[in-house]
Amino acid sequence: MPRDNHVLIFDTTLRDGEQSPGATMTHDEKLEIADLLDEMGVDIIEAGFPIASEGDFLAVSDIARRAKHSVICGLSRANFKDIDRCWEAVRHARRPRIHTFIGTSPLHRAIPNLSMDEMVERIHDTVTHARNLCDNVQWSAMDATRTEHDYLCRVVETAIKAGATTINIPDTVGYTAPRESAELIRMLIERVPGADDVVFSTHCHNDLGMATANSLAAVEAGARQIECTINGLGERAGNAALEEVVMAMRVRHDIMPYTTGIDTTKIMNLSRRVSTVSGFPVQFNKAIVGKNAFLHESGIHQDGVLKNVQTFEIMRPEDIGLQAKNIAMGKHSGRAALRAKMRELGIDLADNQLNDLFVRFKALADRKKEVYDDDLIALVQDADTHEAHDTLQLKRLRVICGTDGPALADLGMSIEGVEKSVTAQGDGPVDAAFNAVKALYPHGARLELYQVSAVTEGTDAQATVSVRISESGRIATGQSADTDTVVASTRAYVNAINRLIERRKKSAPGDDVKTVDYRAPAE
Amino acid sequence: MPRDNHVLIFDTTLRDGEQSPGATMTHDEKLEIADLLDEMGVDIIEAGFPIASEGDFLAVSDIARRAKHSVICGLSRANFKDIDRCWEAVRHARRPRIHTFIGTSPLHRAIPNLSMDEMVERIHDTVTHARNLCDNVQWSAMDATRTEHDYLCRVVETAIKAGATTINIPDTVGYTAPRESAELIRMLIERVPGADDVVFSTHCHNDLGMATANSLAAVEAGARQIECTINGLGERAGNAALEEVVMAMRVRHDIMPYTTGIDTTKIMNLSRRVSTVSGFPVQFNKAIVGKNAFLHESGIHQDGVLKNVQTFEIMRPEDIGLQAKNIAMGKHSGRAALRAKMRELGIDLADNQLNDLFVRFKALADRKKEVYDDDLIALVQDADTHEAHDTLQLKRLRVICGTDGPALADLGMSIEGVEKSVTAQGDGPVDAAFNAVKALYPHGARLELYQVSAVTEGTDAQATVSVRISESGRIATGQSADTDTVVASTRAYVNAINRLIERRKKSAPGDDVKTVDYRAPAE
Repeated sequence: MPRDNHVLIFDTTLRDGEQSPGATMTHDEKLEIADLLDEMGVDIIEAGFPIASEGDFLAVSDIARRAKHSVICGLSRANFKDIDRCWEAVRHARRPRIHTFIGTSPLHRAIPNLSMDEMVERIHDTVTHARNLCDNVQWSAMDATRTEHDYLCRVVETAIKAGATTINIPDTVGYTAPRESAELIRMLIERVPGADDVVFSTHCHNDLGMATANSLAAVEAGARQIECTINGLGERAGNAALEEVVMAMRVRHDIMPYTTGIDTTKIMNLSRRVSTVSGFPVQFNKAIVGKNAFLHESGIHQDGVLKNVQTFEIMRPEDIGLQAKNIAMGKHSGRAALRAKMRELGIDLADNQLNDLFVRFKALADRKKEVYDDDLIALVQDADTHEAHDTLQLKRLRVICGTDGPALADLGMSIEGVEKSVTAQGDGPVDAAFNAVKALYPHGARLELYQVSAVTEGTDAQATVSVRISESGRIATGQSADTDTVVASTRAYVNAINRLIERRKKSAPGDDVKTVDYRAPAE
Repeated sequence: MPRDNHVLIFDTTLRDGEQSPGATMTHDEKLEIADLLDEMGVDIIEAGFPIASEGDFLAVSDIARRAKHSVICGLSRANFKDIDRCWEAVRHARRPRIHTFIGTSPLHRAIPNLSMDEMVERIHDTVTHARNLCDNVQWSAMDATRTEHDYLCRVVETAIKAGATTINIPDTVGYTAPRESAELIRMLIERVPGADDVVFSTHCHNDLGMATANSLAAVEAGARQIECTINGLGERAGNAALEEVVMAMRVRHDIMPYTTGIDTTKIMNLSRRVSTVSGFPVQFNKAIVGKNAFLHESGIHQDGVLKNVQTFEIMRPEDIGLQAKNIAMGKHSGRAALRAKMRELGIDLADNQLNDLFVRFKALADRKKEVYDDDLIALVQDADTHEAHDTLQLKRLRVICGTDGPALADLGMSIEGVEKSVTAQGDGPVDAAFNAVKALYPHGARLELYQVSAVTEGTDAQATVSVRISESGRIATGQSADTDTVVASTRAYVNAINRLIERRKKSAPGDDVKTVDYRAPAE
């Protein structure tokens, strides 16, 4: 394969990212993120691990059916059953890919208890099988950076001979450093027969904070695919962040003359959505997408920036879709201004959505002097989770809390059109309100996540609350934004229960827990 | 200077870190962080920018007086007045250092409007002046990575001849990549006369996500000082993270055979304290110190970890002071267990502190089934901010909020021993409670930060609230933890006002706003 300077971006937010403890996404959230990745120009979307669960299978097949441009890829271990299941899911895509892997380092070879020769045979058989189903096959040597070089050359050669079109070299434990990362790829390209006919890929974890540099070093050595996630989501310290590798190649095109197909102006919106649906906040000082990434404090820096923006900025905020001018909107702003503002934020709304948003914007503007960009984004997200036909509708809430005794919540809710009310107590105002919801609508769902984030500054700011609940493997999330945290919390909880009820009705397995035994089983 | 393999760790959390928009720390917070850095074995602490403000000056001088082991350094621009002021502050240290800098790149030379020759002369004069005051002088070429190589060699040579003992090469805009970072240091060491007599230092920003890799690449090329901050705090995307550079050299000692004097088991505690006092949360997937950094989700990984911890872990949690076993404590746990637990968390308490904590631990255990490590840490932090002689004491709070109309707060507070009460309304429960506080104790302080973080999971979890207020340049913060967010918020607000009142009484300028004109002025 000619090593031209185009680097493929392989996004695994929905597979490796979703694997982060606590970052599980619902089916609908996965479809939404996949649509955004596809629009942004991601070359390959790894949509899930089809055999891991019924939910993963459905997500991969639905995403395969929807994708307009991206290759849709599913993960599978090194056995026929996994690969067949993966193919069943990705075959619906215009451009499907099967991704199969096995751990090749000494520590990982010990798990399925295969000899070196047996593993080579297994790789040959499984890649051949995958290639018989699909002409786009990626093979990964899990823990490649801790695999003996000679053996790594041998297994890579085997995979290429069996028909793999992409060879991925993962740094599974986030262990390598840039020079070592480059040397490994260079060694493979030099030594392995057939290396010129495949794309080499890098997959770096950030345990030592070097995932971005390691990925780019691999590219300099000849890799032409980077596996990454939005916000660097992923197990432990996460994966290489898509926004960092893409922007680094763009900003330092002089020393890293590589191109990607990514529309970088969509980065900020995707970062926000992934943060919201995963429940993983982005830290203020996160590279590229942190809220401080383009902020300057010290006099010397401000002075420099005013004189010449290049003095301290190497990127423009608008390059990643962040509008430099954060025009506060107020109660006198009209519908046209709101539509223009939302466009500027990268959010296109249908007329009915705009009308709905406008009503809620006006209500907020009455309570809050200035409405910021983040407030508007929170309002839009809030709208996504309300629906008129919901089983439970919050009608009235009054909470009394304080230093003396338990908190009390007096709640009125309509359940399938019938109004009911109750008073319940709890440990703090939110606990009391949730207990009241449970008293009116008893259910066995477990609260998995309760998270409050202030959307803007000050105590009259809107708070966005995310609630995630689960019941027999089904997961449902609810969100709400309000200047009253207790009201927002209760709305979010009620929304989550409504989503769970819908899911029960469909009796779709949806978003169940992964139950697979991950050791590569014998055929 | 012989290039042995010991790398000096220069921590600038209190200077470059504190410069992050929104991360301003109070005087007491700075002293506490400096003590912890000193204990952890940081070689050089950059304690502030003495001429920038009276507060910075006092912080640097107080830290200089307290430091037991670390060199204490202050920053100064390239003029005699700055350098004199810096020396006045650091001279109290056992081991003082003056750090002086000037921007050497074309963009930065344009700001003070100096010709290349004039700048060389300025560097010669200022470094000579600094060296006449102090025999430990660091000189930095701001924006070195965008300075012409020949000119950079010339200015570095000038600084060395004038007596600088450490030469710092900052990547001020976070622009470089590892290979380039190494080449720059290598070129300087090869070309500049006298290079062998000084320590070269690297100072990297994380705008492209490569600060850690760039710092380590500079070390491989001969740099022997890394400038960094806890949690990677700093302007924009921050500085290289101390925990990442230190742990990378430790974990990959095979390819990066460098040592530091850092006691890594103190990392986790420092990370938590810096996060709390700066109000900058650490993201879940942050390398080394994120709450997910040692967590595993997927079946395959859990299976591997159970079989052999090395399969997916390259560090042990205890290496950074994180106890692997998060033993939940309950209402039956005794005083000895609590003391043992706190020691395990790296917190040594005096007897009276332990007694106080035990009482509050029991109260919490009555309300919460299991008390986690994070709950205990929140309790300790809460204790730090309460004092018996406080002007304002919260006596009673009752808040009514909900979907109908504004929230109402009924507050009882004693002010200098006199009990008063009031009812106030607001937009949401916290706003109402704060309005009630202001009604009983009117003040002109502005709310700068209001931040809620859930300490543990669930709605009966403790929430920690941080409040920061400011008045005529004085800054005060308050914190509180409670299962009732509204109560915690109000306590935190009252605590902040108490700290502000103390500061007024001392009439110490304390933590004032930096007002200096940062352009290097003509002599």
